[in-house]
Amino acid sequence: MSAEGPARGANCAPFGGSLAAEQQAWGGHSLPDLGAIREAHARIAPYVHRTPVMTCRAIDDEAGASLFFKCEHLQKVGAFKARGACNAVFALDDKSARRGVVTHSSGNHGAALAYAARARGIPAWVVMPANAPAVKQANVRRFGAMVRLCEPNVTAREIACDAVMRETGATLIHPFDDPRVIAGQATAMLELLEAVPDLDAVVAPCGGGGLMSGTAIAAKAMRPAIRVLAAEPANADDAARSYASGKLEALPATTTIADGLRTTLSARTLFALRAHVDAFGTCSEVGILRAMRMIFERMKQVVEPSSSVPLACILERALDVANLRVGIIVTGGNVDLDKLAWTP
Amino acid sequence: MSAEGPARGANCAPFGGSLAAEQQAWGGHSLPDLGAIREAHARIAPYVHRTPVMTCRAIDDEAGASLFFKCEHLQKVGAFKARGACNAVFALDDKSARRGVVTHSSGNHGAALAYAARARGIPAWVVMPANAPAVKQANVRRFGAMVRLCEPNVTAREIACDAVMRETGATLIHPFDDPRVIAGQATAMLELLEAVPDLDAVVAPCGGGGLMSGTAIAAKAMRPAIRVLAAEPANADDAARSYASGKLEALPATTTIADGLRTTLSARTLFALRAHVDAFGTCSEVGILRAMRMIFERMKQVVEPSSSVPLACILERALDVANLRVGIIVTGGNVDLDKLAWTP
Repeated sequence: MSAEGPARGANCAPFGGSLAAEQQAWGGHSLPDLGAIREAHARIAPYVHRTPVMTCRAIDDEAGASLFFKCEHLQKVGAFKARGACNAVFALDDKSARRGVVTHSSGNHGAALAYAARARGIPAWVVMPANAPAVKQANVRRFGAMVRLCEPNVTAREIACDAVMRETGATLIHPFDDPRVIAGQATAMLELLEAVPDLDAVVAPCGGGGLMSGTAIAAKAMRPAIRVLAAEPANADDAARSYASGKLEALPATTTIADGLRTTLSARTLFALRAHVDAFGTCSEVGILRAMRMIFERMKQVVEPSSSVPLACILERALDVANLRVGIIVTGGNVDLDKLAWTP
Repeated sequence: MSAEGPARGANCAPFGGSLAAEQQAWGGHSLPDLGAIREAHARIAPYVHRTPVMTCRAIDDEAGASLFFKCEHLQKVGAFKARGACNAVFALDDKSARRGVVTHSSGNHGAALAYAARARGIPAWVVMPANAPAVKQANVRRFGAMVRLCEPNVTAREIACDAVMRETGATLIHPFDDPRVIAGQATAMLELLEAVPDLDAVVAPCGGGGLMSGTAIAAKAMRPAIRVLAAEPANADDAARSYASGKLEALPATTTIADGLRTTLSARTLFALRAHVDAFGTCSEVGILRAMRMIFERMKQVVEPSSSVPLACILERALDVANLRVGIIVTGGNVDLDKLAWTP
């Protein structure tokens, strides 16, 4: 499946032209511009890797395009999330920083915030559902963060976060609904375009929309002619539906294997996607596993299912990139090796 | 387990000093020198990747050393074997080349020779045991080589190779007992030392000894002070025993998971190892799987069991590299993803 966005002309430049009205309608949520992204890049440079860009002839042959994989699975903590967390943590003033940071996450953002807080030498609390796998809790504790367990629902999570903030004065670092986090995630695209300046298109997976927003803002600001494409599992296509309808659509309970993408957008990220993304594609679960296996077998890279969604959309022709030079943000490599399954 | 080699002084330089007598005793088998390795490097450059060198803080912490992984699993056909096969094939004169090449292999060398022959536009035959997995036969056919099946024993294999040579005039390209192949395999070490000139040591796995010989010759010629270490599964330790005794020791039927290392040395490679390797280490099967899992989890790289043997020897302290800067040749990434098992 693929969905084209609202018709837009030259006025789809960041925050310009007729989008101002739409932005206001979304509450005027602030988003980083290229200047903020460059500042983030300089701020986080000592703490994150400048990851390599890989190519693979065999996969290009299957895709019918030239693919450039930005390897964020080789990033600190094994995911791009280290970028946003580091930017948010190192952007804090000293007084706020000393009181620490808190977030809710059962995935890579929790580990990334723990890593960033340790790098700055400040405390971190991560609220996790009590049913989160022990290995994910261990990943967060590895970097010295405190884990607070709660019931696995949104209300319990918010109560637990609020309690930490009240007790400690810690600053909440949201996994994606935060301009500092978005600016940090955007730095992967900045590096990709520095490495491969003549890309025709870029594809990133879309969960809460933090990475997708940052990628789109950086891409369009640095190279206005680039096509920005978002990829989502058909089993968790709330962002594609929200993008098409212009309002936040619900995500029914989902079983997609791409666990990093079982998240809905915020008003802020939906606004950014409507402003800067050219099209959405969605893919099947079988397609995700097929793409993931191809990346393991042909590129010899260990990636998590969410990272395979852009390639799956290309291979299922849900995104049209025939004969183009296409960047792909490979988001992470934290997959449970005991549970690798190549068929759903 | 670790085994120190015969006592040697400054005369362990390539083919110099008192080793001349030993070389003669081994039948004066020719081996490439650094000049031949540099020639090989120039010859194969258009057909192989200059693979990257990776580092990983988390693995360094476990190893107690600074490890530099030369990523031959990212090489063409997923293994260093592309280097030796390309050098042998492109070193042939036109008349011989036109008649094609033949080898026996159920592993990476067969695919590598098929790849090299296709690159030169000449025919290739690969003799494989009839019980070789279909996936391995397919790997060879993928590059357009002809597969000849034979009974799974040495005699049948040699008869089948001889038959191809008689029928077609094809040149035999042995998987390791060939100076052109050894020179090609050595180019990985040449690149590694160009990338990281101040290595204290290098470790490579040892099967038939082609890679190990080439690595050792290149290493000692480019950096005489470097320690050259060979790694082998304890379940297939014929090379370590041969190295210690000075004669070719037999390898009983072995079940090591490191299938690429179930091969015995030739007189030529044994001579090279005795001349240029400083020590052998051997490791357990559990250690191989533990190292392999560490490379998957921490480096996010898909490697085959044989590639994990050097790290396993370091982690089991069978090779003493404490606090050193150590190169590791990661030999290949062709592992059966349907049969990944993390415990033996």
